[in-house]
Amino acid sequence: MRLHDYFRSSASFRVRIGLNLKGIEPERRFVHLLRGGGEQFSEGLTRLNPQQLVPVLEDGDIVLTQSLAILEYLDEIHPEPPFLPATPAERARVRALALVIACDLHPLNNLRVLRYLKEPLGVAEENRNAWYRHWVGKGLETFEALVAGDPATGRFCHGDAPGLADICLVPQIFNARRFECDLAPYPTVMGIFEACMALPAFDAAQPARQPDAE
Amino acid sequence: MRLHDYFRSSASFRVRIGLNLKGIEPERRFVHLLRGGGEQFSEGLTRLNPQQLVPVLEDGDIVLTQSLAILEYLDEIHPEPPFLPATPAERARVRALALVIACDLHPLNNLRVLRYLKEPLGVAEENRNAWYRHWVGKGLETFEALVAGDPATGRFCHGDAPGLADICLVPQIFNARRFECDLAPYPTVMGIFEACMALPAFDAAQPARQPDAE
Repeated sequence: MRLHDYFRSSASFRVRIGLNLKGIEPERRFVHLLRGGGEQFSEGLTRLNPQQLVPVLEDGDIVLTQSLAILEYLDEIHPEPPFLPATPAERARVRALALVIACDLHPLNNLRVLRYLKEPLGVAEENRNAWYRHWVGKGLETFEALVAGDPATGRFCHGDAPGLADICLVPQIFNARRFECDLAPYPTVMGIFEACMALPAFDAAQPARQPDAE
Repeated sequence: MRLHDYFRSSASFRVRIGLNLKGIEPERRFVHLLRGGGEQFSEGLTRLNPQQLVPVLEDGDIVLTQSLAILEYLDEIHPEPPFLPATPAERARVRALALVIACDLHPLNNLRVLRYLKEPLGVAEENRNAWYRHWVGKGLETFEALVAGDPATGRFCHGDAPGLADICLVPQIFNARRFECDLAPYPTVMGIFEACMALPAFDAAQPARQPDAE
């Protein structure tokens, strides 16, 4: 497999964790999302992904985009260890937690959105940071409410093994720290985060450990 | 099953289509997202969904949130007709298309985001509408590039039967029309939309056909 990736992209971070958990070592290609040349708009990446976003995972001739679709694919072709629990109701719980991050939080705070707020909307940096923290707060408040006190929550989001929800949660906590969000109101979330980061699969996937990190 | 829903919510619209395709007729509860009383913040809905968003689907004691997690659940417990194709690679393609809408387009344009742009950010209506059309344009441009010319595309997003990607696409086209977005640049998308709307399952799920429509 070949992964097109950027160290700071949290969608890429999810896929790196997933590959590590499955024990897959892909070939790596790095796409710099900030550098002036606009490498993400290169012809090669556009051919693979018209959306010009990372991550992109190539598995032979198969080109995969969208981190959650990639993770479900990895789970289907390499079932062990599973990213999802055994019953439909449990699977729905884990997918819903993952989607709180992937649909309701992260899309509002990614780079292209922050750029649009700056230009053309002319939103000042202070208000862009407030925007960022507002959506982190809303998302993590929900996440905390969903995991705290639910007997299905264990050391990880669902029981005592990491899965799809943990994979989505961890990169978001890195982002929240980078933007100096207050994480004290989310003790269950932060306990899960610490349990994840104690695992080599999560630790090795973090931005600072990537070859293209600055 | 019992569906908590709002006629104009496009995430609810997805679940209505999914239930219709599976031939399930849920009991209905309507939550008005705009009315002054703030019915979506009622104690009952908060208990079911700390995120205070619709849709929420109850299946006996099981409470399901997040439209995509609900649709995957429905597909697991009622496999026919399937929302996803047979092979992992095809399933990844359909999920990626669904996620272009559900992660990259819709979250930027939903009600709570438009409200935040208005207040506290103070973005004028004209610029909020430009924001809306910008993200519709980016999302549908990607979607069109992914479906046009791909031999896997048929009358619907994947082959000749509707599935998860179509379920996500159709409500977004309703939204785009409501905000008077130009849809001429997306002929493949609009062909798929028309094929979907010819099916009773899609037609009956549209906002204007709901009992709470205004």
